[in-house]
Amino acid sequence: MSVSLGELAVRFGCELRGDPDARVEHVATLARAGPTALAFLANPKYRRELGETRAGVVVVDTAGAEASPRPVLIAANPYATYARIAAVLHPAPAFAAGVHPTAWIAPLAQVAVSAYVGAHASIGEGARIGARAVIGPGCVVEDGAEIADDVRLAARVVVARGTRIGARTIIQPGAVIGSDGFGFAPERGAWIKVPQVGRVVIGADVEIGANTTIDRGAIEDTVIEDGVKLDNQIQIGHNVRIGAHTAMAACVGVSGSVTIGKRCQIGGAVGIVGHLTICDDVAVTGLTMVNHSITTPGVYSSGLPAIPAHDWRRAVARLHRLDRMAGRLASLEKQLGKEQDD
Amino acid sequence: MSVSLGELAVRFGCELRGDPDARVEHVATLARAGPTALAFLANPKYRRELGETRAGVVVVDTAGAEASPRPVLIAANPYATYARIAAVLHPAPAFAAGVHPTAWIAPLAQVAVSAYVGAHASIGEGARIGARAVIGPGCVVEDGAEIADDVRLAARVVVARGTRIGARTIIQPGAVIGSDGFGFAPERGAWIKVPQVGRVVIGADVEIGANTTIDRGAIEDTVIEDGVKLDNQIQIGHNVRIGAHTAMAACVGVSGSVTIGKRCQIGGAVGIVGHLTICDDVAVTGLTMVNHSITTPGVYSSGLPAIPAHDWRRAVARLHRLDRMAGRLASLEKQLGKEQDD
Amino acid sequence: MSVSLGELAVRFGCELRGDPDARVEHVATLARAGPTALAFLANPKYRRELGETRAGVVVVDTAGAEASPRPVLIAANPYATYARIAAVLHPAPAFAAGVHPTAWIAPLAQVAVSAYVGAHASIGEGARIGARAVIGPGCVVEDGAEIADDVRLAARVVVARGTRIGARTIIQPGAVIGSDGFGFAPERGAWIKVPQVGRVVIGADVEIGANTTIDRGAIEDTVIEDGVKLDNQIQIGHNVRIGAHTAMAACVGVSGSVTIGKRCQIGGAVGIVGHLTICDDVAVTGLTMVNHSITTPGVYSSGLPAIPAHDWRRAVARLHRLDRMAGRLASLEKQLGKEQDD
Repeated sequence: MSVSLGELAVRFGCELRGDPDARVEHVATLARAGPTALAFLANPKYRRELGETRAGVVVVDTAGAEASPRPVLIAANPYATYARIAAVLHPAPAFAAGVHPTAWIAPLAQVAVSAYVGAHASIGEGARIGARAVIGPGCVVEDGAEIADDVRLAARVVVARGTRIGARTIIQPGAVIGSDGFGFAPERGAWIKVPQVGRVVIGADVEIGANTTIDRGAIEDTVIEDGVKLDNQIQIGHNVRIGAHTAMAACVGVSGSVTIGKRCQIGGAVGIVGHLTICDDVAVTGLTMVNHSITTPGVYSSGLPAIPAHDWRRAVARLHRLDRMAGRLASLEKQLGKEQDD
Repeated sequence: MSVSLGELAVRFGCELRGDPDARVEHVATLARAGPTALAFLANPKYRRELGETRAGVVVVDTAGAEASPRPVLIAANPYATYARIAAVLHPAPAFAAGVHPTAWIAPLAQVAVSAYVGAHASIGEGARIGARAVIGPGCVVEDGAEIADDVRLAARVVVARGTRIGARTIIQPGAVIGSDGFGFAPERGAWIKVPQVGRVVIGADVEIGANTTIDRGAIEDTVIEDGVKLDNQIQIGHNVRIGAHTAMAACVGVSGSVTIGKRCQIGGAVGIVGHLTICDDVAVTGLTMVNHSITTPGVYSSGLPAIPAHDWRRAVARLHRLDRMAGRLASLEKQLGKEQDD
Repeated sequence: MSVSLGELAVRFGCELRGDPDARVEHVATLARAGPTALAFLANPKYRRELGETRAGVVVVDTAGAEASPRPVLIAANPYATYARIAAVLHPAPAFAAGVHPTAWIAPLAQVAVSAYVGAHASIGEGARIGARAVIGPGCVVEDGAEIADDVRLAARVVVARGTRIGARTIIQPGAVIGSDGFGFAPERGAWIKVPQVGRVVIGADVEIGANTTIDRGAIEDTVIEDGVKLDNQIQIGHNVRIGAHTAMAACVGVSGSVTIGKRCQIGGAVGIVGHLTICDDVAVTGLTMVNHSITTPGVYSSGLPAIPAHDWRRAVARLHRLDRMAGRLASLEKQLGKEQDD
């Protein structure tokens, strides 16, 4: 795929400084780019590499433009513009409409003629696959699931019975959508399974990562709103609702019946305790435990940074003796006639 | 599915206050229930919703019965009774006995005539599938595995060679049972693979969550006893033994050769270090690290609650300076002739 | 499989104390071994079991040899020698060369005649499968992927388009290699997908655990060097590089663009923040958060050990009041004319 700089400038509304007839064929990093490559500068940390790049063109903001020895495409949001150009230079793999000879389509399933169903995929009774949808190899779409237009399921995705998936949503390999939630009633030292009768309802323009799992609702539905982005190996419990455009990094665990607002950013391996509510525009840093509802937008943390193990062991020992230290401090205060309540 | 309140009262041993000929068709939450729905009250937190519910009938305990404006079924354990009634109103999907045309059964495998084997599932040489077992689409049951009566494997479950699975056990999509354990012998800066020759042996009435992984034993077996419930994305290392009726929330990691007692409750994302023993009736709260054996029943924790990031950074800095603070405290005590050992 | 002690001594360069014609058939633990079993002693903790073992032969070091009531094979590194002998007594399942009738091979894929492709596996256009490679049931090898000689993919592994896998590498069930990285450009409160155009390149003699996920590079490649061992349910973000012979326990999360050195040992459920560099020969203990680069070899920690929940709640409360305590300490010092800066 080869595009002229002039065409890119017009198509993506950038100011071009350079030869409009020069062409680029692929993307590259500033450090590795050659004359046929398009690069970008979004993170000032890479400013030095800009000065040395051999890229055919660089997508930059106004400030970056001054510093570039090479042709530039000037954009208000260089990273977003880069993303759109990269999708032109490196289009997602195309799939010819049709059903692979090894796939299985149940008699009463409805598969759009423009959809693709890959090798060893199966589409259950009454399931609906929308126009131009791509169902990858080894996917299982169970009875009554509805997959909207332009959805892409990569390899080996499970979409359990009754799940709804909105337009243009992308699901990475190995994800499981609609597994039973973890619902058991204790009785005389054992557990009785509580039927999980809700569904999973996923909005449009969502992305779900590899081997991520989303449980169906216990009674009502688990809901993932439009534009949510979930990384790999995330666990979403039953009855959870995630607000539009919230993003979660990998390995997050969200317990049952949690409600998360819109535009939140949840760091990697965060754990969220059940039945909490997190308001819009909350950021949680990695490895934090959220065990109470959050009602004020802002950044929240509880992750501990690594230090040398020997120092860490001492700090932990002190932490476990803090009560004792507080007591000693109080007795000194008393002796000095300086009592305080703690 | 429609059932009369009278029939439910008799079948589940509840006292009915209401018209025995009234019928319900499905379950619902107290808040959303209409006259054809059965709801329940187990968590007092939802008591207010009970007062306003429009449910056809509510499963409650004696206390709840007084507060309900609607017909009630009175049970000693409303949640357990609800679970059983829900299974009547919403039976698990039924599967006609037989083997899907796209499935593969090895010549020497034994599949009960009453079992179901789904699309693109494969059953290995010498494997045995019990009566009424359901092997979901895309499942792989390897050579010599034994799956007892009434087991349900959802889609894309892997049951590795030689694994044993007990009666009525349910395994959610994407789970892997019997992968090689993480065994490597260090030698001159590299690693030699240690063959993993044990099996995984799973009891009866176990449930295993989506994308959970259980490693086969290194020499002897990894054992999951009867009635254990494991949520999604749990990792169980080789040679682990989990006692009967223990439940684990999602994302727990159990290292190799750990022994966990009966009726334990392990919170989400707990990590358990290798070669430890945890006694019966232990509860561990979420995001806790267990790095020593536990010999006394009770509740154990080490998870840190989220606070605003700015405050958290100060607390961490203080924690890393605790030694210094302790020294200052000691010197004051000395000055005041009040020395103590810490 | 039955082997004489003499043959083992010669083949693995051990000193034998015992009858060279005696034979063993399988491995066992010291505690359970009978006369036809080979056991080993590597961990001194099991020394007592050595004194009571009934094993046919025990692999030990010189010290262990004295303490053994049974025949011994003396090795410098008993665990490594045990590993090699166990591979003889318990060889990995053999697969006859060929393609299973239910597998799908794309017209332009190249599969070595000595390779095995299992039930319901699919090999994409232009993919290459090396000599004696084993592609397990339900695996998906996408277009253009290259799998070297003697690689073993267990059941249901996904190898996404363009991935390279080196010789003798073993991948456990459910692993996903080459999923899209988590790359999104923020724009007006929503996210634009950034095409992930790099590959995953995996070296030789690597092992990758069950349901582990490795994302393809955003622009350049994600690289796993020779001899790396990754346990189950690990997440490796895009553009990560892991140095040769580094080992990671289960549930580790490595964020994007992290570079990890050679011979590192990363404990279970460690989280590594993005864009960091960790030098060679670093060990990180379990449940630690690494949020800054590490430039000195050594052991690093931040995991908190479990204690009774009641004591833990008090310690956390104190931790959150440390600032206050520090202030009280400072004011005492002032009163005593003993001011210090903290």
